[in-house]
Amino acid sequence: MKGLLAPIGKLVNEFTKLPGVGYKTALRYAYEVINMTEEEAASLAEAILQAKKEIKYCNKCGALSETDICEICEKRSDSIICVVENPKDVLAIERLGEFKGQYHVLGGTISPMDGIGPDDLRIKELLQRIGTGTVKEVIMATNTDVEGETTAMYISKLLKPLDIVVTKIARGIPIGSDLEYADDVTLSKAFLGRTEF
Amino acid sequence: MKGLLAPIGKLVNEFTKLPGVGYKTALRYAYEVINMTEEEAASLAEAILQAKKEIKYCNKCGALSETDICEICEKRSDSIICVVENPKDVLAIERLGEFKGQYHVLGGTISPMDGIGPDDLRIKELLQRIGTGTVKEVIMATNTDVEGETTAMYISKLLKPLDIVVTKIARGIPIGSDLEYADDVTLSKAFLGRTEF
Repeated sequence: MKGLLAPIGKLVNEFTKLPGVGYKTALRYAYEVINMTEEEAASLAEAILQAKKEIKYCNKCGALSETDICEICEKRSDSIICVVENPKDVLAIERLGEFKGQYHVLGGTISPMDGIGPDDLRIKELLQRIGTGTVKEVIMATNTDVEGETTAMYISKLLKPLDIVVTKIARGIPIGSDLEYADDVTLSKAFLGRTEF
Repeated sequence: MKGLLAPIGKLVNEFTKLPGVGYKTALRYAYEVINMTEEEAASLAEAILQAKKEIKYCNKCGALSETDICEICEKRSDSIICVVENPKDVLAIERLGEFKGQYHVLGGTISPMDGIGPDDLRIKELLQRIGTGTVKEVIMATNTDVEGETTAMYISKLLKPLDIVVTKIARGIPIGSDLEYADDVTLSKAFLGRTEF
């Protein structure tokens, strides 16, 4: 890093590895670290090491967990399983506090362009979980982009022969937004998915 | 942090201490850390600790330094001293590679609203450096906001009785920008500061 003292240059370089962080932002962060007290800097460094060390993936559902099997898999009924793309999605749904079933994290979506096929996702593991016979419903909650929809479609076809209900979360107009600003596809899906009062 | 595993919540909390980082950004950073390899996370943590440990302030000019007296103070002539607000400003000027004198970092600006008076800045230290008699010119390069201008004015008055040239860097229209978008104050200063071809 031109003109920077070596330890600052190194830190700037490390910070640019965070998502969306360019040189200027990394430099601001580095200056902030230098302005911290010794304790504050140590606390930041420690939190990084600790999170990396203590957070793993649940062996069953694939969500983030501090234990081999996560608390959700441990405590909740597996009669309903919600299928999501990433561990982050579990967090988003859990924040609502409304869904009371278990999750299954695929670890991505089918995306031939990126060389990701069904075998690269945790689909086999999902079929194994369903094989135990206690699962009654699978809710597909993948993203609503092309890859997410394709993946949901692929999995729902796999599950069709089995005696379980497969659903997907509703597509439609987001609450609080103006109809006139909705894109055509969303608006059209909203009409198709209309419900009775 | 609601719904977050404790180590992630702690890391998110630490990241929000960086400038301009809110909850969502901190969460993205935390997930990135968890997705890093053990070595990458250790390298980030280590860079933070190292920068904090090895970077101090130059005893003479107040810029960031790995040694008690920085390389610039050590190697360059003190016949011209450039006065800036913050250590970051030294870096910005050094990037040009054009200024060959020494620096003096004030550590802020006079700002009665924030309870910062002249005695809270490194003005005494500047006068001491000038007292040695080798300084021929002092260039004021504080920011061009009210506080910066006030501080520059205050210091230039202090230096007036001494036998040195006191200058300030030019105010005017930034290179490559449209006249019509320049604010009134800048445009007016640009006229006042016009130079002959």
